[in-house]
Amino acid sequence: MPLGDSGNETSGEERLIARYFRPLATSPNAFGLGDDAAVLTPPAGCDLVLTTDGVIAGVHFLPSDSAQDIARKALRMNLSDLAAKGAMPTGFLLSIALPPGTQESWIAAFAEGLGQDIAQYRCPLLGGDTDHTPGPLSVCISAFGTVPHGAMVRRATAKLGDVIAVTGTIGDAALGVVLHRDEAVGKEWRLSSAAQNHLRERYLLPQPRNAVAEALRHYASAAMDVSDGLAGDLAKLCRASGVAAEIDVARVPLSEAARMAVSADARLVERILTGGDDYEIILTLPAAMFSAFRTAAEQAAVAVTEIGQVMSGQGVRFLRDGKELAFARGSYSHF
Amino acid sequence: MPLGDSGNETSGEERLIARYFRPLATSPNAFGLGDDAAVLTPPAGCDLVLTTDGVIAGVHFLPSDSAQDIARKALRMNLSDLAAKGAMPTGFLLSIALPPGTQESWIAAFAEGLGQDIAQYRCPLLGGDTDHTPGPLSVCISAFGTVPHGAMVRRATAKLGDVIAVTGTIGDAALGVVLHRDEAVGKEWRLSSAAQNHLRERYLLPQPRNAVAEALRHYASAAMDVSDGLAGDLAKLCRASGVAAEIDVARVPLSEAARMAVSADARLVERILTGGDDYEIILTLPAAMFSAFRTAAEQAAVAVTEIGQVMSGQGVRFLRDGKELAFARGSYSHF
Repeated sequence: MPLGDSGNETSGEERLIARYFRPLATSPNAFGLGDDAAVLTPPAGCDLVLTTDGVIAGVHFLPSDSAQDIARKALRMNLSDLAAKGAMPTGFLLSIALPPGTQESWIAAFAEGLGQDIAQYRCPLLGGDTDHTPGPLSVCISAFGTVPHGAMVRRATAKLGDVIAVTGTIGDAALGVVLHRDEAVGKEWRLSSAAQNHLRERYLLPQPRNAVAEALRHYASAAMDVSDGLAGDLAKLCRASGVAAEIDVARVPLSEAARMAVSADARLVERILTGGDDYEIILTLPAAMFSAFRTAAEQAAVAVTEIGQVMSGQGVRFLRDGKELAFARGSYSHF
Repeated sequence: MPLGDSGNETSGEERLIARYFRPLATSPNAFGLGDDAAVLTPPAGCDLVLTTDGVIAGVHFLPSDSAQDIARKALRMNLSDLAAKGAMPTGFLLSIALPPGTQESWIAAFAEGLGQDIAQYRCPLLGGDTDHTPGPLSVCISAFGTVPHGAMVRRATAKLGDVIAVTGTIGDAALGVVLHRDEAVGKEWRLSSAAQNHLRERYLLPQPRNAVAEALRHYASAAMDVSDGLAGDLAKLCRASGVAAEIDVARVPLSEAARMAVSADARLVERILTGGDDYEIILTLPAAMFSAFRTAAEQAAVAVTEIGQVMSGQGVRFLRDGKELAFARGSYSHF
């Protein structure tokens, strides 16, 4: 039933949902979650950018993960898509399916996490739907952003000779999820507890790069967010654009923690380059514009690193010391 | 992963999804499902109306129901919300979670059903997301429509003295779901097999009233779709509007099949008035406008019936032979 429908004769749980979610729907366009639908009026001359992404317990997170983190990650996955497309967030719809026995404290914590990110990213809750499910908890979000008409940054528009860059650091979440599921690995990788926490946090709570959305619109020829692994997602961008790419593995930006793990086990490079959940942005742009883009991104407190080049042909080659790395798997898959 | 992401190294299932869903994404705004996001450019002077609704196997349908019907019902639930708000459909996002062992033939049939309704309601697939789930099959749709700026038909704007009207017939789906789960009931209710089929069909495949969206914008003071039962949904509309309502039960429009069932078992009146899944529209409008609205609706081949009146106070009273009916439950809940 719609999120805000708390009737006279509704269950305790529906009242809880109205209690915890209605306060998040502060936009007048959400009608206090008290209607069948919400309304959006994009500014004149703007397009609306639409994306949808969801998480399922046991697939994208552990049922024991904190409700705050689950909520924030589900929203941030969508915010990351908007960022990569150069769009400014304008709101989202939330669909949530609750397993039997979901506690009030869980719903309260989920709403609290969501509320934090609604404020931080200025992306209001516009409406939603809730159901009970005999299956695992699942959350489906559709998020909306605006761009000037025709200015959405595409995936299919990389140009020959462009340089390839990424935001932030790559592979932290792919290592973090291993640590999160098996603490013992931290010793094997010779990581301090601070380094372990860093990697786990990068998995549990992505940092979508919405701060560089405007710079992407100005400088990027193509972009997408890295959610299924750098290797696989860059391959998608290249296929969509009809180009190939060469990446200099030594230039791929790693966090200090990831660097330490690789020193302990050099085989982790593959996990870093092919693992998922980075929620960084990969982009292409003319070489002459890289420095201006980097300056703009740094002003938004986001690091960017040039890691390779768009070539003619097909496929993505990862080069280290002049040799091509071969991966057992090209792209992380939740399946 | 996004619906259209079929990489070089993807699973057979991802290829199937690209094979069956990409052909449905014919809008240039969907980029062939080959980007992170879709784009919508609402016509100048228009608002976008946003709604989300989903279905879960074992909750909203039986796992044995046809994949075509599941797809169409999931989309039509959302189309019905757009209709009630006076909005013209412009597209939707689809999120689908597939249980282990989902067959290619199931995905093909699901896409076929979806394609039929995309064409019939001119509501293109703009993007989506697919995942595996250890739980039941679930489908989450967010649908978008347009209305002239400020013209969305609200729930909270019913006026004292307005008449109350509904489209189509009420209660068919509430009887249909009982028949669908237990065929033997048909005999008890003394229904011909044609009558049983009619009721079952009304449950399996709602008929959203998008054809009257424009007339609603012109004539309705308030409206919502009847998805959780006439009694409960009208109560929500009244609470949102700060009014009461009186319904003349004898005027509530019933199909021939529902009428036959009530003759066999008079207690079914409660199920008819409180059961869910009607996907008709309940609206309020000034009495002087009813006849013009009915004419406009009939031109769109949708029957409308006046069933009661907006009053001052609180609550909804259902009157039969001058006496108020009391219901054990006010509103159907899937919970």
